[in-house]
Amino acid sequence: MTESDLPVAQLTPGRWGDPSHAVDLPAAALDALKRLGIQHPAEPAAVTPASEGGELSAVQLAFLTSVVGSQYVLSDVDSRWAHTRGYSTTDLLRFRAGDTSDMPDAVVYPASHDEVQALLTGAAEHDLAVVPYSGGTSVVGGLAASRRFVTVDLRRLDRLIDLDEISRTATLQAGVRGPAAEALLAERGYTLGHFPQSYEGASIGGYAAARSSGQSSAGYGRFDQMVVGLTLATPRGTIELGRAPMSAAGPDLRQLVLGSEGAFGIITSVVVRIRPRPTERHFEGWQFENFDAALTAVRRLAQDGPLPTVLRLSDEVETAVNLADPDVLGGSAGGVQAIIGFDGPYDQATADVLTAAGGTNLGAGPGETWRVGRYRAPYLRDPLLDEGALVETLETATFWSRIPALKAAVTEALVGALSATPPLVLCHISHVYETGASLYFTVVCAQADDPVAQWRSAKAAANQAIADAGGTISHHHGVGADHRAAYATEIGPLAVDALQAVKKLLDPNNIMNPGILLPES
Amino acid sequence: MTESDLPVAQLTPGRWGDPSHAVDLPAAALDALKRLGIQHPAEPAAVTPASEGGELSAVQLAFLTSVVGSQYVLSDVDSRWAHTRGYSTTDLLRFRAGDTSDMPDAVVYPASHDEVQALLTGAAEHDLAVVPYSGGTSVVGGLAASRRFVTVDLRRLDRLIDLDEISRTATLQAGVRGPAAEALLAERGYTLGHFPQSYEGASIGGYAAARSSGQSSAGYGRFDQMVVGLTLATPRGTIELGRAPMSAAGPDLRQLVLGSEGAFGIITSVVVRIRPRPTERHFEGWQFENFDAALTAVRRLAQDGPLPTVLRLSDEVETAVNLADPDVLGGSAGGVQAIIGFDGPYDQATADVLTAAGGTNLGAGPGETWRVGRYRAPYLRDPLLDEGALVETLETATFWSRIPALKAAVTEALVGALSATPPLVLCHISHVYETGASLYFTVVCAQADDPVAQWRSAKAAANQAIADAGGTISHHHGVGADHRAAYATEIGPLAVDALQAVKKLLDPNNIMNPGILLPES
Repeated sequence: MTESDLPVAQLTPGRWGDPSHAVDLPAAALDALKRLGIQHPAEPAAVTPASEGGELSAVQLAFLTSVVGSQYVLSDVDSRWAHTRGYSTTDLLRFRAGDTSDMPDAVVYPASHDEVQALLTGAAEHDLAVVPYSGGTSVVGGLAASRRFVTVDLRRLDRLIDLDEISRTATLQAGVRGPAAEALLAERGYTLGHFPQSYEGASIGGYAAARSSGQSSAGYGRFDQMVVGLTLATPRGTIELGRAPMSAAGPDLRQLVLGSEGAFGIITSVVVRIRPRPTERHFEGWQFENFDAALTAVRRLAQDGPLPTVLRLSDEVETAVNLADPDVLGGSAGGVQAIIGFDGPYDQATADVLTAAGGTNLGAGPGETWRVGRYRAPYLRDPLLDEGALVETLETATFWSRIPALKAAVTEALVGALSATPPLVLCHISHVYETGASLYFTVVCAQADDPVAQWRSAKAAANQAIADAGGTISHHHGVGADHRAAYATEIGPLAVDALQAVKKLLDPNNIMNPGILLPES
Repeated sequence: MTESDLPVAQLTPGRWGDPSHAVDLPAAALDALKRLGIQHPAEPAAVTPASEGGELSAVQLAFLTSVVGSQYVLSDVDSRWAHTRGYSTTDLLRFRAGDTSDMPDAVVYPASHDEVQALLTGAAEHDLAVVPYSGGTSVVGGLAASRRFVTVDLRRLDRLIDLDEISRTATLQAGVRGPAAEALLAERGYTLGHFPQSYEGASIGGYAAARSSGQSSAGYGRFDQMVVGLTLATPRGTIELGRAPMSAAGPDLRQLVLGSEGAFGIITSVVVRIRPRPTERHFEGWQFENFDAALTAVRRLAQDGPLPTVLRLSDEVETAVNLADPDVLGGSAGGVQAIIGFDGPYDQATADVLTAAGGTNLGAGPGETWRVGRYRAPYLRDPLLDEGALVETLETATFWSRIPALKAAVTEALVGALSATPPLVLCHISHVYETGASLYFTVVCAQADDPVAQWRSAKAAANQAIADAGGTISHHHGVGADHRAAYATEIGPLAVDALQAVKKLLDPNNIMNPGILLPES
């Protein structure tokens, strides 16, 4: 039994996504990197971890085997290395350096809720910490538990359990990956409409556990808004939630499990709202004089409608980078660009709002370019790292009135912290609400001698700027280990204590994703 | 200092709402009651509680006075009696019988968050249980704590603290009543759009604590969907939530506080999403052949749109009752009626969906009748009780595919349990979602010798039917003491334990609304 025999192919260890989708940098981009002072580094020695097994005892291995069967407990180094950390830039840099800390002792592949429940019930007794594995696409250290652990990979929980056409709900097992979910629903004429950048790799359970938000969020909502029910296996037993779409029977406990990132247990199935598959789609670009003008236009759609399905707005720097291939540093071609998309008929009323707000319709060309490349950005990071660039993203959300100041403060913090390797800071808005929106930043600069330390210092400065300007530490990446401290500051010590009380009740031995989400006492 | 010197007039003790809005039953209704076998009872002796003070010690009173000032601690019997229980039918029957159990020992009127926080911080030390008071409009025993208590009436927290026109958010203190909130927002050109049946009495904090849902929920959403931030005072300190409209930073803790019904602490302010006040409104009636056909039409609007602001559908019995004045028992005038309403321009596309689904537009007449009487139903209960009728409501929600079976099961349970006094069971749908809807039942029959026991037995049968048919125990009334057991069954023992863990952390001495929401261990 090896990884490749399992139902879904693993993402390439240490490089993003499907290997067949890997991209090369265009010559112009390489030229631009040179002008940013970025040098192709000396080729590092290829580092692979020593071929050794995990550190589980015979009794521990026997327990795992007793639950899932021996062919579904892998402790070879390749399987373990392939489940080491996620896909933040610091994760990739440490992967490249052969840093085997955070490597699980084994990877276990349960096939059902009952097997997951049995694993968790028995894990505490056998002193096994457990990290749930969705697609490994965390970019916030969500897989870097604070002590040795086994990874529970849910890819065998890959079924559509139920589809209720009257209620328009589907019950999906947690291990169903994004494309598989769409394929299962498409057979019946439906779509979930959830298309995050991690779409190719992440799974339903991961979307739920990390409060994912997709590129069509303006039309379909965030993943947490699609969830009407879920099943959670915890070390203390199973919780099933969602008797009705909405209820006044106490707190909404679904919203306590959503975003819990494996700290309380493992989500094994999710009931989601589904919609009929659209028979047509339209994407187009719009140009505005500057970010402030476009921000007003986007806010108008978010507050007064009609909202399209996709609504994205790049700032001046990101617009220049997007446009200026083959000259990414050639400066702005003038103004900023937005992308709008419709699942279903084109809505002229949306276009009229943008026109009234000063927008110029650029037609389907830029929309099609965006659509084709919509999952490409993270693939570009690997060759950029190869070339000696440091490239990473971070994101936040706040209320509309705070957006300009927050954007300026985060940009200033990043430029200041990276002054030794002057960065390019790109920003876009891709998720909007009536009362506010997300801000997504991309940073590119030359790698310093210690690029991990370099980024951590820049990220700390950005985090402080976000906190000071009134943003949340994450709109859709989550908390993981990387945002744990900032998150605790954001919600305050008493709210942290309340969450710790829940964790202690459900996970009294602290075996669930220890050190993720919440500080350890 | 008396109640009447305080900023907002109290609802009439023991009778619903503003005394100036009290209604008499029309002669035809009295005639119909006779035909239901309902006899006007012998006039009971007017029962008023003995004029005695509460049972607080001098030290306890001194503590309360030290926080809010002596003029804001009332322990006269009138003030305490006016804060006794809520407005369920069993509450009213016990009020009429002079049952002084559940009467608070004092009523305290803090003026600020800091005073509320000081009250809660000190209450545990002084062995004082605390019941937060919104408008006293609970119909699920939300004010019937399990041991002696003081009531904290928030009516002096009556300010609009902030209005952010760019973000379209307003920060309201928890004691602002519905009409006052609308008046404060109207001065600036905005509306909250929350119009529950309790609108005239309940306050912002109560809406939040009990997950209220208003008559315009199709257009404006439920109250919990309007909340973007809140401040909670607990015995252990203050929690402030809502850094952004939406976030992936952990569980959504706002949704843990919403619906907590005072069991964790007292909500002192809420940040709500606001919208521009509509410049026009339209209401109209629609007729369908039967409930099933109309249900399909309503579901079509909920799933594919366009939704109106108000969407209500009465079943055959409720339609007959609504129409048949002066002959409420004259039987159905044919089919069922729905009401739709628009805040803003009339949307022909909505009407087209209803027409395509077999509906007949009855024009503005029935709409206007509904609008004028929209807060009148609970006023009718008092004269009906006077006449010897037992009248009460209950409600639930479920997914669309389960609605017909759930409706039939609850009706059957009520008819069966009340077979000695054959009831009329009315039903309507007034809150819709893509995946399901609420069901609201009204029951009218003759009072038995012990009407409290009579209703409790019928309600128990209905609760069981709801549980068996897969509904939630409450869509918008809440849990209180009345639904505590059914709620525990609905979410299961492990979820109850998790909530208890939160309560124990925030309220270690169990002083907050003890016995409400959660069972006492």
